[in-house]
Amino acid sequence: MVSSKFDVLTVGNAIVDIIARAEDDFLVRENIIKAAMNLIDADRAEHLYSVMGPAIEASGGSAGNTAAGIASLGGRAAYFGKVADDHLGRIFTHDIRAIGVHFETKPLVAPPPTARSMIFVTPDGERTMNTYLGACVELQPEDIDAAVVADSQITYFEGYLWDPPLAKDAIRLAAQIAHDNERRVAITLSDSFCVDRYRDEFLELMRSGTVDIIFANESELKSLYETADFNTALSAVQKDIDLAAVTRSEKGSIVVTPDNLTPVEAHAIDHLEDTTGAGDLYASGFLFGLTRDRSLADCARIGGLAAAEVIQHIGPRPQVSLSDMLAQSGI
Amino acid sequence: MVSSKFDVLTVGNAIVDIIARAEDDFLVRENIIKAAMNLIDADRAEHLYSVMGPAIEASGGSAGNTAAGIASLGGRAAYFGKVADDHLGRIFTHDIRAIGVHFETKPLVAPPPTARSMIFVTPDGERTMNTYLGACVELQPEDIDAAVVADSQITYFEGYLWDPPLAKDAIRLAAQIAHDNERRVAITLSDSFCVDRYRDEFLELMRSGTVDIIFANESELKSLYETADFNTALSAVQKDIDLAAVTRSEKGSIVVTPDNLTPVEAHAIDHLEDTTGAGDLYASGFLFGLTRDRSLADCARIGGLAAAEVIQHIGPRPQVSLSDMLAQSGI
Repeated sequence: MVSSKFDVLTVGNAIVDIIARAEDDFLVRENIIKAAMNLIDADRAEHLYSVMGPAIEASGGSAGNTAAGIASLGGRAAYFGKVADDHLGRIFTHDIRAIGVHFETKPLVAPPPTARSMIFVTPDGERTMNTYLGACVELQPEDIDAAVVADSQITYFEGYLWDPPLAKDAIRLAAQIAHDNERRVAITLSDSFCVDRYRDEFLELMRSGTVDIIFANESELKSLYETADFNTALSAVQKDIDLAAVTRSEKGSIVVTPDNLTPVEAHAIDHLEDTTGAGDLYASGFLFGLTRDRSLADCARIGGLAAAEVIQHIGPRPQVSLSDMLAQSGI
Repeated sequence: MVSSKFDVLTVGNAIVDIIARAEDDFLVRENIIKAAMNLIDADRAEHLYSVMGPAIEASGGSAGNTAAGIASLGGRAAYFGKVADDHLGRIFTHDIRAIGVHFETKPLVAPPPTARSMIFVTPDGERTMNTYLGACVELQPEDIDAAVVADSQITYFEGYLWDPPLAKDAIRLAAQIAHDNERRVAITLSDSFCVDRYRDEFLELMRSGTVDIIFANESELKSLYETADFNTALSAVQKDIDLAAVTRSEKGSIVVTPDNLTPVEAHAIDHLEDTTGAGDLYASGFLFGLTRDRSLADCARIGGLAAAEVIQHIGPRPQVSLSDMLAQSGI
């Protein structure tokens, strides 16, 4: 493999999470789709904040969480994402740099403000997101630092980037630069409703070879192939891409290649607190393993370990050193 | 007892916490006094944030945490404290109102900004605070809403309020209004270094009858009486006030009256995560018990229960309903 400055570059919507506990009937009353990422506008954001319980704020954003996880594992991570030059933007920038991620995307000076997602954590530990995209709508091709893409073993991005208007062009540019430099490109499908919005485009990314690796959970994969049958979806994805990592919550994950399905058990946990970041951190571990030439099963195990850490506390990023956890795990 | 609209009014520095994990050698390197509240200026705040790890933000402030705990226990709480009209101020205001606390102190429109405390949590679970007081320096007598004081069974305030220049005048005014309305007044000594700064004034508050109840931990009480011997300090406080609640971390607490010392065991916990808010939540439970005419030992037990909840997660305010916890505890 060509040497690189970065193990993984991730690209995504740069978001600060506002996290509160809520009962299920609150979600029903407010017409919020449970366990999904609900896109909201500024007025809706104001309304939901007014009825939200006491909250904590933590930097988030799917690909931002993944970059933070890679850094915590000891990997060299970079991140592209658009914040505004405001208080939440400074919090986001501080946190991602403080964990060791290279983050130099130019902040937006004009409105809209930095994106925020109001996350309601129900008693079952499930998280339900309500995202106001704010400054993220301005992420565009000129935010792609070609030198960083060229110098990253893997460029990874969120399916969520199909929601803002210009980011998909940025991603196609980044994928082209990555492949021109013999690097790999990965995508997470992000959310089953997101898949429903952009199914044809995601399938085209896979079938055209624009992406080499996909991450999906079971419901996203079933949504992608419009099937209720998981095995049908697994067979379908084997034909469309060389490598897929499919997560199944407490059932662990399955590594999918054209010829093999490799199931890996979930990492044991003491208690489930908040699932926010589970998929993002699984991707951290899996990608870190890939850049360290670990077996695919070990990549899935490292993913499971990173996910296990993040679901045992409130907040979407690791609170302890994943590098230490990995060293102690024997994986 | 005269009927009241509020069980407890608390008054304190309105602060948003910025919480990160750190190793002990970081505190040494940065010349931060461990386990204490270190007052810092704007330049020092900027420096510490630049070297701080990834953080989460959560509303804090000692008396704010106490008010939140009382509301979570099902009590009727009010709070006076000064934020600025900025993003952190809006977060503070949202969180304290969302938990059910009456909070109407007028925010500061001009600079300085809302206060923030950078809190480093070391592997032993101890918290070390670095507080930039910001807008808190503007809390003054005109912020005392006499009707709320008159309508609160107990007015409780932080010793920390002796740090900003005008708040002590506000507190003396509030104490006068409370006593004129046959209400009780309580103080927490806050921090052993704070006691060292204002020892004579705190003793005068007790001996003059300006306060009726004090909260202190062991080191604060020893600092108050300038003794290394805990029993000497206990005997001294018995002569100075009718009721003291003295906390001793895992050793529980002691309720002190002129004639009795009543030790109460600590509430059992699974694991210690972050001691931030322990003393504040103990005060919540104790004060709530007093307003419900519970025995002093039960007041201490409710305090211990509330403290036990908050030290098992990151952040200074309860994450679950203390009212439910109390109902299930059998206390």
